[in-house]
Amino acid sequence: MPLSHLDKSGRARMVDITGKPRTERTATATGRVYLRPETLKRIQKGGVAKGDVLAVARVAGIMAAKQVPSLIPLCHPLLLSGVEMDFKEDPNPDSEDRCSIAITAVVKTSGQTGVEMEAMTAVCVAALTIYDMCKAVDREISFGGIHLVSKTGGKSGPYRLKTNTRK
Amino acid sequence: MPLSHLDKSGRARMVDITGKPRTERTATATGRVYLRPETLKRIQKGGVAKGDVLAVARVAGIMAAKQVPSLIPLCHPLLLSGVEMDFKEDPNPDSEDRCSIAITAVVKTSGQTGVEMEAMTAVCVAALTIYDMCKAVDREISFGGIHLVSKTGGKSGPYRLKTNTRK
Amino acid sequence: MPLSHLDKSGRARMVDITGKPRTERTATATGRVYLRPETLKRIQKGGVAKGDVLAVARVAGIMAAKQVPSLIPLCHPLLLSGVEMDFKEDPNPDSEDRCSIAITAVVKTSGQTGVEMEAMTAVCVAALTIYDMCKAVDREISFGGIHLVSKTGGKSGPYRLKTNTRK
Amino acid sequence: MPLSHLDKSGRARMVDITGKPRTERTATATGRVYLRPETLKRIQKGGVAKGDVLAVARVAGIMAAKQVPSLIPLCHPLLLSGVEMDFKEDPNPDSEDRCSIAITAVVKTSGQTGVEMEAMTAVCVAALTIYDMCKAVDREISFGGIHLVSKTGGKSGPYRLKTNTRK
Amino acid sequence: MPLSHLDKSGRARMVDITGKPRTERTATATGRVYLRPETLKRIQKGGVAKGDVLAVARVAGIMAAKQVPSLIPLCHPLLLSGVEMDFKEDPNPDSEDRCSIAITAVVKTSGQTGVEMEAMTAVCVAALTIYDMCKAVDREISFGGIHLVSKTGGKSGPYRLKTNTRK
Amino acid sequence: MPLSHLDKSGRARMVDITGKPRTERTATATGRVYLRPETLKRIQKGGVAKGDVLAVARVAGIMAAKQVPSLIPLCHPLLLSGVEMDFKEDPNPDSEDRCSIAITAVVKTSGQTGVEMEAMTAVCVAALTIYDMCKAVDREISFGGIHLVSKTGGKSGPYRLKTNTRK
Repeated sequence: MPLSHLDKSGRARMVDITGKPRTERTATATGRVYLRPETLKRIQKGGVAKGDVLAVARVAGIMAAKQVPSLIPLCHPLLLSGVEMDFKEDPNPDSEDRCSIAITAVVKTSGQTGVEMEAMTAVCVAALTIYDMCKAVDREISFGGIHLVSKTGGKSGPYRLKTNTRK
Repeated sequence: MPLSHLDKSGRARMVDITGKPRTERTATATGRVYLRPETLKRIQKGGVAKGDVLAVARVAGIMAAKQVPSLIPLCHPLLLSGVEMDFKEDPNPDSEDRCSIAITAVVKTSGQTGVEMEAMTAVCVAALTIYDMCKAVDREISFGGIHLVSKTGGKSGPYRLKTNTRK
Repeated sequence: MPLSHLDKSGRARMVDITGKPRTERTATATGRVYLRPETLKRIQKGGVAKGDVLAVARVAGIMAAKQVPSLIPLCHPLLLSGVEMDFKEDPNPDSEDRCSIAITAVVKTSGQTGVEMEAMTAVCVAALTIYDMCKAVDREISFGGIHLVSKTGGKSGPYRLKTNTRK
Repeated sequence: MPLSHLDKSGRARMVDITGKPRTERTATATGRVYLRPETLKRIQKGGVAKGDVLAVARVAGIMAAKQVPSLIPLCHPLLLSGVEMDFKEDPNPDSEDRCSIAITAVVKTSGQTGVEMEAMTAVCVAALTIYDMCKAVDREISFGGIHLVSKTGGKSGPYRLKTNTRK
Repeated sequence: MPLSHLDKSGRARMVDITGKPRTERTATATGRVYLRPETLKRIQKGGVAKGDVLAVARVAGIMAAKQVPSLIPLCHPLLLSGVEMDFKEDPNPDSEDRCSIAITAVVKTSGQTGVEMEAMTAVCVAALTIYDMCKAVDREISFGGIHLVSKTGGKSGPYRLKTNTRK
Repeated sequence: MPLSHLDKSGRARMVDITGKPRTERTATATGRVYLRPETLKRIQKGGVAKGDVLAVARVAGIMAAKQVPSLIPLCHPLLLSGVEMDFKEDPNPDSEDRCSIAITAVVKTSGQTGVEMEAMTAVCVAALTIYDMCKAVDREISFGGIHLVSKTGGKSGPYRLKTNTRK
């Protein structure tokens, strides 16, 4: 099976989906931001408005899902019908003394192609936003484990990653 | 030291950098895409135009660096003076039988604040583009280890992450 | 009834409209720009091309209606099927010796949610454009009374504001 | 004095500011959203995350300030060096039984032209966002009194509106 | 027959297409870049990655097709379902000792209006990108003959330009 | 001399201009739209607001000049300090019974690199807009002869195309 984004001569194109039916589709993606325990505490305490870093990251993720066609060169435009972002803090430091925040994005549409890229992009931009807002106090923040958790709708049917974790 | 993106009441703002001098700045960020050995081979063989997936990802990363102010809510607009993207394939499968592609972005500017976000975003969008172009044949692709490698310029002086690897 | 843009924990989300039917919808919004009598006269006389300020404001309003999903964080993308802008000059000065220009935008779509935000945004950006083009000669220009006049389509049926005026 | 955005024949152009020096500039704009007392209470109570509507509106206003060159046709691009948004709730109903939220935006730059449009646009988009998030429970929300409060920097020197209120 | 983009008073509007049925539509546009024989040879040889200029131009054209609603003031947003770009080099110099590259874009959608503008814009931006990447070595590059070749779908039925060439 | 947009291995990059001085720069580009005599007459008569097609095309060209960094992959962001568009109608039909409109764009900046792409893009998008607004009555409109007329500023000094015409 060839890479569908490349035509017969291996050149990039936006794959023709004209014939495909419009179906309801969802995609869930996740990722994890690693940061120092003190940084996580600051985020949790915030100032007066508790959790403001995550509020901004949430908005950034939702807005980024809508920007996918102008960011990812070969993605089709889609009418997103719902986006939700979830953040779960894990205050237990790992072996490198890093805590983490798990980010999950669920995106829905009724369209001719799936919303995996919208969910993945929402997670990335939320992670980038957390990094941006905390980099002055913790420049070593990293993030990873960004992957598709599950999807529904479309010809290939429902999909769920078997393992729970990914680098 | 407070989170500088939050004002005294903990609310979001674009930090005032009006007084800061314009200096030459660079930032280097990296990340790694994990994929099945067969997927990497397809990318490397491409069709006729060898390496087209990476050519598209390269363009996507460079263009994304320029979109940072409209993606990351509290980032300042900057006049980027250079962006380079590098991809290095590692064909040796890891313990989960995954090969990888290391992505590096180097961004330069002459401005009042740094280009860390531009370099980080270029890496993320290049990774998302690789995922998008290969997801039809390898839905389990993941990526991570996204972090700042080094930066120069600005009041805080040069920075380089001590360890080489990050989740 | 809760604010639908906030989930059960009060956090922002793009509301799920996946199940809603596509129906024809319209929305009409209005607003008013207040300016000095001399400024209105300049706009009306223009140079050779009479009415150029309003021609630019008209284009700006139409284009802004299409930018709503990237401006208003939780708005759904929609395929607009029509936008019209109307400007009505009122040369009679009020008690503060200000004339005014009434701006009206009518937006249409066939979609799963309404176009109120597109109509409201078109009015605001047209007003901002008038301000921009005249601020060199009249910095005290203000605008207001921006509100939804009426809408049709969707489950809640037609709506029309009872009173005609709004601050 | 002619309208500077129009050339000698009255046609639109982006005014030539090539010769002007770069100076530090600020602009403050304001506006007011009118809503029912119950709507204001909902915003204030939110769910768990108190004040989330205003948190989203704040982010929307800051991001909109950065979009001015692509929204307002004849505006020059500028490197914003700071944006702050402030919301002040007034719970006392007026004669039409409406409470209000005053929105203020302060924008800074070091550039060849002023940031009035950025401050005005930030106020408008914050108001539009409040409207969007509350329109399901209060469709009669309106907003107005949008005007420039003060500016500093540039050849024409500091400016402050004499009266405090504007329609 | 009046110009449909202008209302009865000759003012710009986004034409109302609310009633029109969704049909499958395609549009093919073309254009030609004229450049010196040495410039064409450089493009063809590239460095290691042969044809990189055209790879970047291809991506630029595809992405530009998606930007049409924000570039062309009165265009309706559309959900593109496919975009392909083709480049054909003609190494035979003309009477002015210029070789050429013919650019063709094919765009598809299922929507209420056609995709002529998307195909035309993709050709223009691909040509601009070739110019940008080669202007350091050949500033006299020009391009032209940009026109619609054919379209299908919609009430007016299939169309094909009778002559093959256009200035 | 290599193509500067390609690195040593022939891969795309945004060329490093960090060291270059900021100088005042201008660029003038031109192009020509070919259309039927009746179409030109309609444009000239318009409805009430004479010349509205050209007014919209003018705004579209100016706004497009500001979008260059997000359209042309390897272009540097620049702070444009002025944009002017000029349209000159030629009512004399050529040998194919086509009249024409010559479009000229003049763009200025004070920056580290030139504004050729901004001027070329402004011309293209103005031509596309004329095509869009007239295609319902004249689908055979074409445009061409798009080239750089002259530039000033920068290390390479002033440039002016020797011949006046270009395909």
